Amino acid sequence: MAIHGGDIYRKEINIDFSVNINPLGMPKGVEEALRESLSACGRYPDIRAQELRDAIERMSGVNERHILCGNGASELFLAIVHGIKPKKIMIPVPSFYGYEHAARAAGSEIIFYEMQEEAGFCLQPDFLEILREETDLLFLANPNNPVGNMINSGLLEKILRTCLEKDIVLVVDECFLEFTGEDIKRSLKSQLEEYPNLIVVRSFTKIFAMPGVRLGYLFCSNRGMLERIGEQLPEWNLSVLAQAAGIQACKETEYVQRTAGLVKREREYMRAELKKTGIMVFPSEADYLLIYSSLPLYEKLLEHKILIRDCSNFKGMRKGFYRLAVKSHEENEVLLHAVRKIEEENRVRSKDE
Amino acid sequence: MAIHGGDIYRKEINIDFSVNINPLGMPKGVEEALRESLSACGRYPDIRAQELRDAIERMSGVNERHILCGNGASELFLAIVHGIKPKKIMIPVPSFYGYEHAARAAGSEIIFYEMQEEAGFCLQPDFLEILREETDLLFLANPNNPVGNMINSGLLEKILRTCLEKDIVLVVDECFLEFTGEDIKRSLKSQLEEYPNLIVVRSFTKIFAMPGVRLGYLFCSNRGMLERIGEQLPEWNLSVLAQAAGIQACKETEYVQRTAGLVKREREYMRAELKKTGIMVFPSEADYLLIYSSLPLYEKLLEHKILIRDCSNFKGMRKGFYRLAVKSHEENEVLLHAVRKIEEENRVRSKDE
Repeated sequence: MAIHGGDIYRKEINIDFSVNINPLGMPKGVEEALRESLSACGRYPDIRAQELRDAIERMSGVNERHILCGNGASELFLAIVHGIKPKKIMIPVPSFYGYEHAARAAGSEIIFYEMQEEAGFCLQPDFLEILREETDLLFLANPNNPVGNMINSGLLEKILRTCLEKDIVLVVDECFLEFTGEDIKRSLKSQLEEYPNLIVVRSFTKIFAMPGVRLGYLFCSNRGMLERIGEQLPEWNLSVLAQAAGIQACKETEYVQRTAGLVKREREYMRAELKKTGIMVFPSEADYLLIYSSLPLYEKLLEHKILIRDCSNFKGMRKGFYRLAVKSHEENEVLLHAVRKIEEENRVRSKDE
Repeated sequence: MAIHGGDIYRKEINIDFSVNINPLGMPKGVEEALRESLSACGRYPDIRAQELRDAIERMSGVNERHILCGNGASELFLAIVHGIKPKKIMIPVPSFYGYEHAARAAGSEIIFYEMQEEAGFCLQPDFLEILREETDLLFLANPNNPVGNMINSGLLEKILRTCLEKDIVLVVDECFLEFTGEDIKRSLKSQLEEYPNLIVVRSFTKIFAMPGVRLGYLFCSNRGMLERIGEQLPEWNLSVLAQAAGIQACKETEYVQRTAGLVKREREYMRAELKKTGIMVFPSEADYLLIYSSLPLYEKLLEHKILIRDCSNFKGMRKGFYRLAVKSHEENEVLLHAVRKIEEENRVRSKDE
C-alpha cells in the first residue's frame, strides 16, 4: 500500500481525492511566474534565495534572517533532524509519515504517542506529563493530518512552554494552517522571538497547489540552530523555478482568503452530505476530512476512478479510516454521488442476504 | 569570497565564465519539455521517478534498479554520506567543495590528500599507498574540478580494486565526463556489477545546461547501499519539472556529441590564445580551463563585467589560480580580448615604473 496519497502514476484515476491541495488550483500569477522563469533555468539559482526570503518576510512578517527554504517541507524535516541530531524524537500519531521518515533517517529513537480515537485523535492535557527531559525533539502538526483538527490553543501554549523548560525542540508543521482561515491568529510564528526552541515549518505546496514545484520554508529565531539546519541542506537546493513561483505566491493574499472561504463552505457541505449516508466524519478545520466507514470505500471508489487516501497504514489508525480532500463543488458532487451509490448498493445487498 | 561560481545575484555581470555548463545552452527539446510540464505542477511528482529512471537506463545502459535520482548531484552527495555514515572520508584536493560540504554535514573526519601543483594537480601512483582500511569513503572527480584533468585510466582501475580490497566506498563524480567526448570509454558505469563498493554520480546540470532545474543521478549496483542512500532523500525530492526535463534530455544524444566537438575546439583555441599572453594554462579535457596569472584577473575582468572563478579558496590552491569556462566562440573572444587588454595595460605600467 502507498505510504502517501497522490500516487496517480500507477493507477487509472479521474479525480484524485487522496492529495489535499488547494481546490482552486495554482494561482494564475504563479503559473505565469513559472513560465517566465523558464528562460532563467540556464543559470544557477540564487544559492541564498534572497529575493524569496524577502518575499516571505513581507508575506509573514517574520524577519528574513529567521527564514530557511527547502525543496519541499520534506527536505526541511530531514535537515532539521540531521542538524539537531536528537537522540529521542516524540511523534504523536496518527500523523504525517514524513516525521517518522526523517526521524529514521537520523537514526533517532522514536517515541510514538497514540492519540485516541475516542478523543477524536486530539492531543489531551495529559500530554504535558508525557513531555520529559529525555525527549529532544517533538513533531506536532497543526492542523494535524490526516484528521484536520487543531490543537487546543491553550494546550499548545503550555506545550510550547514545557518544551522550553525541558529543553525540547518543538517543530510545528503548519503546512495546512492557511486553509483554516485563522493563520494569523493561530500560527506560532508570533512566538518565535520568545521561544528559541521553536521551529515552524510551512509549505507552498498545499495552499498554492504547486506540489510538482517543491517549495517549503521554516521559521526559527535561533541563529545557531538555523545554521546547523542550513548546513544539512544541499547547495542550490531551490530551483530557479521554485524561487520564482514562491516570490509570486507570497503576493497572492486575496487568493489565500478566497481559498479559506471556499474550503470552509465545501467542507461543511461534504460533512453534512457524508453524514446523511451514515458515514462517520471527524471534525476538521483543514481542506480534508477524515471519515470512517465499514465499507471497502477505497476499492469501491477506485472502480469509479476516484482515488482516496486509505488511512489504515497511518500509525494509530485501522482499517476503515479514509481521508478525503475537499475539492471544487463539482468534484465533491462526483465523489458524493459515488459514495451514495456504493452505500445504496450495500444496503440492497444486505437486504438480499 | 564566494565558495562557488555563478553568484550573479549580487554582481553586475555581462558574461559569466565562473560556471562551467554547456556553452550550447539548454537543448530546445528540454526547454519544450519544461514548458509542457508546467501544467502538471499541480500534481505531486512521481515519488519513484519511474519514467525518468527508465529513460536514464536507455541513455546509459545501466539498469534502472541501480539508479537513484537527486535534486542535483549535491543532494546525492549528502544522501550518500548520511546513508553510509563513513567515519573517515578522503578527499584529494583541490576539488569541488561539495564533497567537503557533505562530509562536514555527516560529521565525518576528513582526510585531505593534496595533489601537487608541480604534478599538474594529478593523482599520482603513490596515492594507492595512502588508501588504508581506516578510510571508509573516497570522493574522486573525473574529470576533476577546477583543473579539468582526468585520472590516468590504469591508476583509476587500481584505485577501484584497492578500494574493494580495503572496504572503501568509492564515489566517483562524473558530472563533467560527457564534455570529454570519452564518456563511454572512460565512465566507471561499466564496472558497477563487479564493484559493489562503487557509486558513480552524474548530473544533468552541466551537460544539458540546466542548473536552474536541479537534477542529478547516481549508479550503484549494491542494493543495500542504494536503499540506505535512498532513505536519506526527502520524499518527492524531484520536481515534476525536473523529471520532465530529464526524460527529454536522455534523448539528446546528438546534442551531447555536438557539445564535445565544440568544447574541444574552443578549449584548444582558448588554451593557445591564453598562452600567447603569457598566462599559464593547465591541461584539461573538460569544458573549463585552470589558469595561473600573477595579475589580479578576477577584479580586472569584473571591471569588464566578466565573472571568472577565483580559485584561491580551493583547498590546495593559492592566489593566482582561476577557472575559466569554455563558452561559445563569440563569448570566448570577448574574454580573450579583455585578458589581452589587461595584460597589455600591465606591460605598459611595468615599463613606466
